[in-house]
Amino acid sequence: MSTARINHQWRLKSRPVGLLKPDNFSYVSEPLPEPGEGQFLIRNVHLSLDPAMRGWVMDRPSYIPPVQIGEVMRGLAVGIVEKSHHPNFAAGDRVQGMFGWQQYLLSNGDRVMRLPESRLPFSAYLGLFGLAGLTSYVGLMEVGQPKIGETLLVSGAAGSVGSLVGQIGKIKGLRVVGIAGTEQKCHWLRQELAFDAAVNYKDADYKQQLRAACPKGVDLYFENVGGEILETALDLMNTFGRVVVCGLISQYNTTAAGPGPSNFVAVIIKRLKIQGFIATDYYSKMQEMVSNFTQWHESGQLKYRVDIVRGLEAAPTAINKLFDGSNHGKLIIQVSDPPSVS
Amino acid sequence: MSTARINHQWRLKSRPVGLLKPDNFSYVSEPLPEPGEGQFLIRNVHLSLDPAMRGWVMDRPSYIPPVQIGEVMRGLAVGIVEKSHHPNFAAGDRVQGMFGWQQYLLSNGDRVMRLPESRLPFSAYLGLFGLAGLTSYVGLMEVGQPKIGETLLVSGAAGSVGSLVGQIGKIKGLRVVGIAGTEQKCHWLRQELAFDAAVNYKDADYKQQLRAACPKGVDLYFENVGGEILETALDLMNTFGRVVVCGLISQYNTTAAGPGPSNFVAVIIKRLKIQGFIATDYYSKMQEMVSNFTQWHESGQLKYRVDIVRGLEAAPTAINKLFDGSNHGKLIIQVSDPPSVS
Repeated sequence: MSTARINHQWRLKSRPVGLLKPDNFSYVSEPLPEPGEGQFLIRNVHLSLDPAMRGWVMDRPSYIPPVQIGEVMRGLAVGIVEKSHHPNFAAGDRVQGMFGWQQYLLSNGDRVMRLPESRLPFSAYLGLFGLAGLTSYVGLMEVGQPKIGETLLVSGAAGSVGSLVGQIGKIKGLRVVGIAGTEQKCHWLRQELAFDAAVNYKDADYKQQLRAACPKGVDLYFENVGGEILETALDLMNTFGRVVVCGLISQYNTTAAGPGPSNFVAVIIKRLKIQGFIATDYYSKMQEMVSNFTQWHESGQLKYRVDIVRGLEAAPTAINKLFDGSNHGKLIIQVSDPPSVS
Repeated sequence: MSTARINHQWRLKSRPVGLLKPDNFSYVSEPLPEPGEGQFLIRNVHLSLDPAMRGWVMDRPSYIPPVQIGEVMRGLAVGIVEKSHHPNFAAGDRVQGMFGWQQYLLSNGDRVMRLPESRLPFSAYLGLFGLAGLTSYVGLMEVGQPKIGETLLVSGAAGSVGSLVGQIGKIKGLRVVGIAGTEQKCHWLRQELAFDAAVNYKDADYKQQLRAACPKGVDLYFENVGGEILETALDLMNTFGRVVVCGLISQYNTTAAGPGPSNFVAVIIKRLKIQGFIATDYYSKMQEMVSNFTQWHESGQLKYRVDIVRGLEAAPTAINKLFDGSNHGKLIIQVSDPPSVS
């Protein structure tokens, strides 16, 4: 149990233009709060860094309100209950929620999910069972409705979501082609994750490589990137193809929104269905996902990687690894020591 | 029965840049062909002019091959069998098919649909039961899946498809808001077709007018136009809204495709479903459509207008009425005299 008397926090100081910078946040400290009646104290262990955070700090209408100036930065985390005066939570409980960029917080239990025990490392709650896990699972299975033998194209394929989407695709009997931004990532997708093909979009001839990798065209495109890669994918789509729009990471750091795909008319010509989704609309599928993922992971069919950066103070710098292509696997801040694996 | 010995035709001479021009076609004549065994001679009565034709003359991959240089221009038409040596077609039969921009043609019956007799004028086969009818019916009912009480926004609302879509929406209990390009058209939509609101997109404040006309946002957007109007509509969409992409007429005459919607990220934020379709994939719904449309028209709930231009020679000029906004209702070329209504 921690003996720190101080709680450190990152609070939003200003709205970013372009990349997030440490200057956009204030690193503040406050005395460690004491839980009152009906409250409990959570110690954050792992904090999830996600592309969506770039949108949360913008003052514009979205699916959740923007983080206000002066507020603790929003973020999904997993932690341990340290001290409780709440009837349903006890010291030692593993919990998950939007606990934010801070070391500790008080909770009354609202929107806190108790986590099942697991043989996997504590970071698996964010790495495999976290938002990326739910996003990949429901995005592919519920929105994408894959059919055996189809060709699945995944952009951002080496990312936390993309790497799971591709592996689920293989488990479901699809031909899986990934797009990533370095040859090293492409090699990893082909060799470690058994993608049928992986193409580096920084190669000058990547469009031709993709066409060769999809000899029967693309039936299902899982979109994490947007911009030129979305246009390229639309060109490869088969008639009646489906586009699952999970993310448009290439657009998040531009102050002015970039243009949409110039070949949007393909939507008619090819009778495409383009559907956006947000994983949190599908919490009802969480248990099914955990059950399938556990089985697939234990049988060796579903691998995942975490990229753990130590220390809460690194958060505003580390998040840009999501946007410059340098992370490899689910990006996580380790805020404090995880419990030892039993 | 016609006694002409000459068959006039419009053949594609060159691929247009921008608007279609008479120069892009050659007006040629040939002797009236004589049907051989298993053939019959069709006299075209009405020729349908459709926005899709602009795409058919472009040399690019699409849902049907481009019209080749030197070929008779492709076009849907309705006509009368004049002379037959075919077991299944007799002189006097009413028929529909891709008969092209010509006065007469020989057929072996392939892809020729025999039309039921009707109390409505002959032009109704193109005006109400034609491609626009099928497009509006299956686009709204099958792709759009409207639910009572929803708000339906229709662009190109005074066009052949849009005006039917809006009326079907009213019949199905939706709030219907149309977008058109003149105050006269908007007045017609409100007064004659009972749209709840109609907004002229040439008004400087049309976006504010649309927002006011859709106080509960837009659940279903029927897209005929594209470009800036698509962006405006995406801004108005409700969470889980659907966009039915029927046409993108604003894009058809640009040599370089315009950019897609700059607010494409709304697809994720609002979990939108954007789906393109082509009416001819839904021929199985034709009988259902004719049955419903007949009933709705006879009860006065479904009105339609035709804009009939006389003479095959006018076709390459008249088609541009679709693109400059000057037509009002289904645009039809009257190639020859229709049979008198019995």
